[in-house]
This record gives sequence, structure tokens and C-alpha cells, in this order.
Amino acid sequence: MNQDFLNKVLATGNGHVDGASKVSTITEYVGSAAGETVGLVIANLDPQLRKGIKLDPKYRSIGIISSRSCGAALIWAADDAVKATNTEISDIQFARDMKGGTGRGATVIFAAEDVSDARRAVEIVLQSTETHLGDVYTCDAGTVEFHYTARASIALEKAYGAVQGKSFGIVLGAPAAVGLVMADTALKTASVNIVNFVSVEEATYANEIAVTFTGETGAVRQSVIAAREVGVNILRSMGCEPKSLGNPSF
Amino acid sequence: MNQDFLNKVLATGNGHVDGASKVSTITEYVGSAAGETVGLVIANLDPQLRKGIKLDPKYRSIGIISSRSCGAALIWAADDAVKATNTEISDIQFARDMKGGTGRGATVIFAAEDVSDARRAVEIVLQSTETHLGDVYTCDAGTVEFHYTARASIALEKAYGAVQGKSFGIVLGAPAAVGLVMADTALKTASVNIVNFVSVEEATYANEIAVTFTGETGAVRQSVIAAREVGVNILRSMGCEPKSLGNPSF
Amino acid sequence: MNQDFLNKVLATGNGHVDGASKVSTITEYVGSAAGETVGLVIANLDPQLRKGIKLDPKYRSIGIISSRSCGAALIWAADDAVKATNTEISDIQFARDMKGGTGRGATVIFAAEDVSDARRAVEIVLQSTETHLGDVYTCDAGTVEFHYTARASIALEKAYGAVQGKSFGIVLGAPAAVGLVMADTALKTASVNIVNFVSVEEATYANEIAVTFTGETGAVRQSVIAAREVGVNILRSMGCEPKSLGNPSF
Repeated sequence: MNQDFLNKVLATGNGHVDGASKVSTITEYVGSAAGETVGLVIANLDPQLRKGIKLDPKYRSIGIISSRSCGAALIWAADDAVKATNTEISDIQFARDMKGGTGRGATVIFAAEDVSDARRAVEIVLQSTETHLGDVYTCDAGTVEFHYTARASIALEKAYGAVQGKSFGIVLGAPAAVGLVMADTALKTASVNIVNFVSVEEATYANEIAVTFTGETGAVRQSVIAAREVGVNILRSMGCEPKSLGNPSF
Repeated sequence: MNQDFLNKVLATGNGHVDGASKVSTITEYVGSAAGETVGLVIANLDPQLRKGIKLDPKYRSIGIISSRSCGAALIWAADDAVKATNTEISDIQFARDMKGGTGRGATVIFAAEDVSDARRAVEIVLQSTETHLGDVYTCDAGTVEFHYTARASIALEKAYGAVQGKSFGIVLGAPAAVGLVMADTALKTASVNIVNFVSVEEATYANEIAVTFTGETGAVRQSVIAAREVGVNILRSMGCEPKSLGNPSF
Repeated sequence: MNQDFLNKVLATGNGHVDGASKVSTITEYVGSAAGETVGLVIANLDPQLRKGIKLDPKYRSIGIISSRSCGAALIWAADDAVKATNTEISDIQFARDMKGGTGRGATVIFAAEDVSDARRAVEIVLQSTETHLGDVYTCDAGTVEFHYTARASIALEKAYGAVQGKSFGIVLGAPAAVGLVMADTALKTASVNIVNFVSVEEATYANEIAVTFTGETGAVRQSVIAAREVGVNILRSMGCEPKSLGNPSF
């Protein structure tokens, strides 16, 4: 992620969620957030598109969020939203796009029987993304991300294979070598069990390595914090000063 | 696509097609166009390379065009060229490269019995790319593209599964969520039939969603125009002003 | 690769290899080099990560190098390192990341019984990368790379299918069309045999085409030099002046 982008993201401030009655004349537009995240809804999806996005026939409305960077932060925000609303996760796809940076963006599609539920989920994601971006640190040399939750829900299950209701953490570093050392630190720090090792090839060729793990909530938290210490210091050793893209949540 | 690139593309003006007698001393060089598009020919391809590019044994000459961005515009230009010349399309590949932008570039290889035919095809693509770039709108938040033809030819068949001789349209939006709302609009506007839904994963992880469709020419045109209205307005809602990369053709 | 990156790489000067006793307080950090290359070691890899990186059970230590660009130069440097140390190549993965440029970065993992061997391999890669970057030429329009060796070793075998102990060369051009003309030139110049044709799709959708070949050392060298002439001139025809990222080694 280059400095320009970092500056831009930092300058963006908090996400703004526009109601349909405000600026936009497009009824589908819900709002945008940092990381070029955009949230939209479709009240009644065209039947020809249902198969393309794997939509269960019982739903007619969808909420859609795409980000251009920091995909893990978006998934964490989607997990918050699915817990708080009457929606399902229909599809999650990661994109190789970070405005020239190292990581990847993501697209999440929520399914709902009613468009107001889809809209509510999108609004929560936009607000929650801003929170989770605080746990992304970036500088010209690379990017590191750290997220955990006490109780994983459907989005984390779909995206990373988390077990619903269990504690779940991710540490992610780019360039990839940084992520591998962070993964090693996380697994050695406390009694946690690996869920998935996401290599460059498995991350759709993003230049990053991530590890996800589960365990007692305190252990997961401890592992994530230890990995943050190491990841931030490696970037610093490479000669740049990583900055949080928001307010760190731990 | 960042503003720098946009400015650069806008500043480039019309493509310049250099004859071999002009600037370049490389006989293979035909010319370049906006979007860092380069056109080259090989009069008699080395036999060891034939398998790599899937060249039919009856051809000895090839024309090659690569772009770093706006792949759909390049495919549309290639379709113009194959209609107007005595060439075949040997191979089409999309690349995950948009100079840090959201979309993807493309490489098209033309096969010909004679190098003059290959050269002519490349010249047409270079000129025609400039035209189709007028139907690409971009700003810092994302990119939207809209193309249609009354009669699809071999390039559109190979790249997108179009039926030759039939009307064919594409609408494409990035980040991906924008493309999905555009796809929904296009399919609802007029009586068109979906040909393909291109998700992030199917677009080789470019951060874009596209839909292609067929129908009566008027209906295809109407759908493309309606999707343009929505796509451009969503980018505007995200706080940037999308600009055409040339002269809009409709 | 944009001009900013080029300037930055050129300004970086020679790579700096920090001993653990110097600047960094992270014991895993070995050093960094141009192209945002970072080198790290893990003395005793966590058992849960062994499967993820395909580590042979007889090794406990690893060395890891990631670059964000110029992956081929990194593989050549890794080949130098594996020849000179008591290590094995455990894994090589290419990433779609070049800071918004055309090519791809790479990650190489060395396996060793002792961490001092892993560290030595990483140090050699960092120094050797600087050398091989001299054979990468880049400008705003694209990037071309040329590397050869009189005797290929394990890294070139794993990454490109080279035969160990034989002469081996690569020519690589981006955008992809440039690489195809360079490949054609290389194969026609001297009596060399193609090993692999790496198309856009095979290069994990990087916007590049490469060809690898073998033969008498003199022939391989001659082919690489002829391709360099053509590749650099095509970029020049596109209106930019390609610059070496270091000191050309031939």
C-alpha cells in the first residue's frame, strides 16, 4: 500500500452512511467507508442474476459490500452485521485489488427477505469496517492486520472456516514472509489451535500469508497481540513506520 | 484506477500508429495506444512457440496486442479488427493488471497467413481501442465500462461466449458491488437475455463484476444506457466524478 | 511499474543486511533489499505451520524471502544461495503484486537443519538480488527482465523446470505482447531449446509473457542478449526510456 493511499485513507475520516433521502438519487446506494468500501442494496434481484450470486430462492433482497483493500477487516465487519440482523451471507469473494498495495479487497453479499434488513446489514458493515480498519497497520513496505472475536458467526465461517460461537483470530502480513513469522509467533505465544494457513497461492496470489486459529478467548487475544508486536516491528526494521488506518481496538 | 493514470490516459490523446519506416527500428513494432496498449507483429513465429500460444499450423504470422487496463474495450476493438481483416483470433488472455486500478488488461493474438494481414488487424485494434475507451468511465473510487455491438464476431465469442452475428452487450463495474447493481439494472430495463455473469472469481480475481447479454439490438442498447446511468451515479455518490477515457460512442 | 517506484528502487542503493545484533530487535529479521525484498528466519518453526509450507520433517529452521516485484530476479538469487549453503528449497510461490506494476513478486522458503544455515542463505539472497535486479529494465510503459546461468540449481528447477547443472536462461516482458516478441527473438537467435512458455494465465495472471530455454552456455547468453536488445527497444518505441534497476551483469 503506498503512502498516497495511506494518506487518503487517513484523511477520509469516519465512514459516512447516506440515507436514500440524502445526497444520492440512486435508491440502491447506502453509503461508503474508508478503503474505497461501497455498500449497496437491491430490493428485488433480477431472476437471471440469482444463480450467479448463489442466492437461495427464499430471498428476494440483497445487500452488497465491496472494498478495494483490507478484505479481512471487511469480513470481520460482515460478521458483526450478520449477528445483528435478520440476514444470511449469500456469497463472499476476495479480489486481487489493493490500489497497488499488497493485500486484497473483498465482496460480501447478504441475503434478506426484506430490503430493510439488507439495508441495515450494509449500514452496520460500513460503520463496523471503520472500527476494524483500526487494526490494520500499513506503510510503504507492507501491511499487517490483526483481528479476533470472542464468538465467530456465519461470515467468518464462510470466509475462513471458523466454528460458529467459538473464539477466532487472524494475523496477516504482507509481503508474505512477514506473515509467516507473525503466524509462527501467534501459534507459539499461547495455547491456540490452527484453523487454516492461508499461503500466497491460497490467498488468490495476494502477496500475503495469514494464519487463523481458535482457543480460549484470552489465548486467542494474547496470540493476536504478540503477532502484532512482531509484525509492526518487522515493517519498522524495513525502514518505515506502520500506521493504523483508524483507532486500534486492542 | 488512480487520478494520475486517468490524467495520463486523457493526456495521451489519440493513439499513434507508427509504420515500420518511422520512429521504431524494431520491425515487430506497429504502434501504441492509450491504456498502455502496445501492438506488435511477428512475420514468422518460431516453431517452438506455436504450442504456447495455440497457433493453428496453417498460420505463420501473428499480430499481438496487450493492454494494461480496460480489457473489455480491447476485446471490442479486436472484434472490429477480426471482422475487417483476413485473420483469426488465436488466443485471448486477461491479466490482473490495471496499474494499481480495479480492472484487468488483456492480450489478444491474431493469426494470419500473411504478416500484412496481421499488421492490418493490429492497426485497426489500436485505432478502435481509442474509440471504445470513450465508453469507459473512471475516477479514484472505481471504473465502469459499457459496450455493445449489433453483430458480435469471433473475439466476443472467444472472450465472452457471444453468439456470432447476434447483438451483444456488456456492463462492467468496479469495485464489484457497483457491477452487480449495474447488472441488475441492465437486465430489468429491457427484454434481454443473460449470456454470462462474470463474478470476481471468474474475472481472475479482478475487483469487478460484469454481465453480458443478448437480445434485439434496440433492447441491448437500452439496457447498456440504463446501466451507464446507474453506474456513473454510484461512483458519483462515492464522492468522485467519473470521466470518460475518450469520446463516448453513445 | 511506475516512475515513483523506479526512482525509489534506484534511490535505495545497495541492499543492507542487518545482523541480529544491529538495528532490529526482532531476532527473526535478517535484512531487506531493493524491490521491497525482506529476509527473515525462524529457528524452530511451530509444528502447526509445517504442513502449510510443505516442510520436510527433518528440518526445523527456515529462511524466508519475499519480494513485491521482479520475482525472477529473486529466484535467480535464491539459486545462488542454495548452491552456496547447506539448505534446501522448501517452497516457492509467486504473488500478483508489483506495487501497481506489471510483474509479480515471489516468496522463497529455505529449509535447514540449523538456523545459521538458513540465515546464511537469506543473506546471500539479499545481496544477490541486488545483482540480478541490474538485469531488470523498467519504465512507465512496462518491464523487461533477462537472466541466465551456466549451471542451474534447485531454485530454478523448482520455479521453472530447469535441469540442474545445465545452462538456463529466461527472458520476460510486460505488457505480455512485449514478452512474446522477446521470446521469439531469443529462440531464433541461437541454437537453444525451449523449456517452458509462461503465458499470462500460467503466470498467475500477471501481465507478462516469459520463455525459458537451455543449450550451450554461449548460445543461451547470446539469446538473452538479443532479446534484451529487442525488449528495451520496444519499450523505447512506446515512448519511455527503460532503466536498469542496478548494474547490468552482462
